[in-house]
Amino acid sequence: MRLVSYDDGRAGQLIGEDEIVPLAGTMRSVIERWARDGARPTPLYDEVISLRDAELRTPVADPSKIIAAPVNYRDHQVEMNVDAQVGALGFFLEAPSSLLDPGGTIQLPYHDRRFDQEGELAVIIGRTARMVGEREALEYVFGYTGLLDITMRGGEDRSTRKSFDTFTPMGPVLVTADEFGDPGNVELRCWVNGQLRQHANTADLIWSVAQLISYASSVTTLYPGDIVTTGTPAGVGPIQAGDDIRLELSGIGLPLTARVAADDTIACPTSGRDRRPVAPA
Amino acid sequence: MRLVSYDDGRAGQLIGEDEIVPLAGTMRSVIERWARDGARPTPLYDEVISLRDAELRTPVADPSKIIAAPVNYRDHQVEMNVDAQVGALGFFLEAPSSLLDPGGTIQLPYHDRRFDQEGELAVIIGRTARMVGEREALEYVFGYTGLLDITMRGGEDRSTRKSFDTFTPMGPVLVTADEFGDPGNVELRCWVNGQLRQHANTADLIWSVAQLISYASSVTTLYPGDIVTTGTPAGVGPIQAGDDIRLELSGIGLPLTARVAADDTIACPTSGRDRRPVAPA
Repeated sequence: MRLVSYDDGRAGQLIGEDEIVPLAGTMRSVIERWARDGARPTPLYDEVISLRDAELRTPVADPSKIIAAPVNYRDHQVEMNVDAQVGALGFFLEAPSSLLDPGGTIQLPYHDRRFDQEGELAVIIGRTARMVGEREALEYVFGYTGLLDITMRGGEDRSTRKSFDTFTPMGPVLVTADEFGDPGNVELRCWVNGQLRQHANTADLIWSVAQLISYASSVTTLYPGDIVTTGTPAGVGPIQAGDDIRLELSGIGLPLTARVAADDTIACPTSGRDRRPVAPA
Repeated sequence: MRLVSYDDGRAGQLIGEDEIVPLAGTMRSVIERWARDGARPTPLYDEVISLRDAELRTPVADPSKIIAAPVNYRDHQVEMNVDAQVGALGFFLEAPSSLLDPGGTIQLPYHDRRFDQEGELAVIIGRTARMVGEREALEYVFGYTGLLDITMRGGEDRSTRKSFDTFTPMGPVLVTADEFGDPGNVELRCWVNGQLRQHANTADLIWSVAQLISYASSVTTLYPGDIVTTGTPAGVGPIQAGDDIRLELSGIGLPLTARVAADDTIACPTSGRDRRPVAPA
């Protein structure tokens, strides 16, 4: 199934190219019901909504946590000129409050720092996962979607650099695991102002989706609705006010878009600008 | 008021040394009601429970995020031999799933890594805070409690090193801001097996509680129930199975205790052990 959240956060099933069938509850409740008894979401057949008339929302608005892989593609490790990757670093966390609806506006907070786009494949956890092995890890996945991990470059803690409000656009479509198929063969393309900056395949992930889930579940209990995002490939680059970002993932269908703004910016109050890691000019 | 969560997570008011008056709802609902209309919690006067008969829980079990200050005391910066402190690093995030009830058992996951105790003063946010200035920041505080930020040393991302399940004991008493008074003059003492390891005063924080909340709210919207923990002073040191940890904060009353266990440990799957920062032997 291809699922969306829309309007006031209710869940819906996307039918064809342009129709939504409303489902009972929010995406979080849909996922929790699936976790409890394996029930697929129940369509409410008494109405169909045109996609044009719906305001699409981020598929899950209130995960208990967002786990993210730092440096999980070799070519990104090379461009960042860092010696550590996910196998040395583990994961970092992003604030759920940084989530942004698809088509939304990323607000850059500072006028004296660099901010980059980072396109990623994100996993939505379906069932409580603790110490799950790599072989069974994908059984805990509810579905997949696109995510932009907007990042301030510099030496601040990753959680800070990636948790500014609006810095995590996600969606618009959540494709359930049964329909999505192999997360290890997903084409990822990310454009800024129509220029292709990132083009990769998840076959090149250092830690596969299954490895990442297995590892994350060995550190922390994963709950239904939690997000695990897989990291970004080479091609990160600066964004500025007026830019349009577009992320496409094979198997997801609709692209994730976001606009960049820089209203009411201030000077950055932290001093990490010239600390490592420093991205290429 | 001095508040606790107990048994199945209901909130209560601590009366004197040994009695709990049950309140309506959970601590999260108590805080949200205060946020909405400034209402103080309503005691349910039809019963009083003996503290002895109650199972104390972490005061807030489901914050939408836990924001933590890295290196926020100079003496801890010196002992860690690092050149960066909170003003360069900003904050990091810990997983809410790492919260542990007071008196609970910290489970060390690996047999080949070092884990330290870090005692801290934690703030519970009372009202939605976005871009609040330093002068008004304390108006957004619901209350204060004790927190142990158990930490794996090494080069992994801070979120990983501090988010293992059971690594964030918190509580047992949440003292409301009106009763607690000045968070800038709190004596902190932390013992391991009866030996005093940490003794400091929050007057020595690099970023005060107000500065920290103001900064955090400039990055991310703070919600009622969110935790902001202020960082640890010098005296961090290794813990191992069988250890007893005890944290006392002036103005909080009951100490926070935790026991350390190391059942079913494995070899650490990430390779950050010999990466910076490295704590003193």
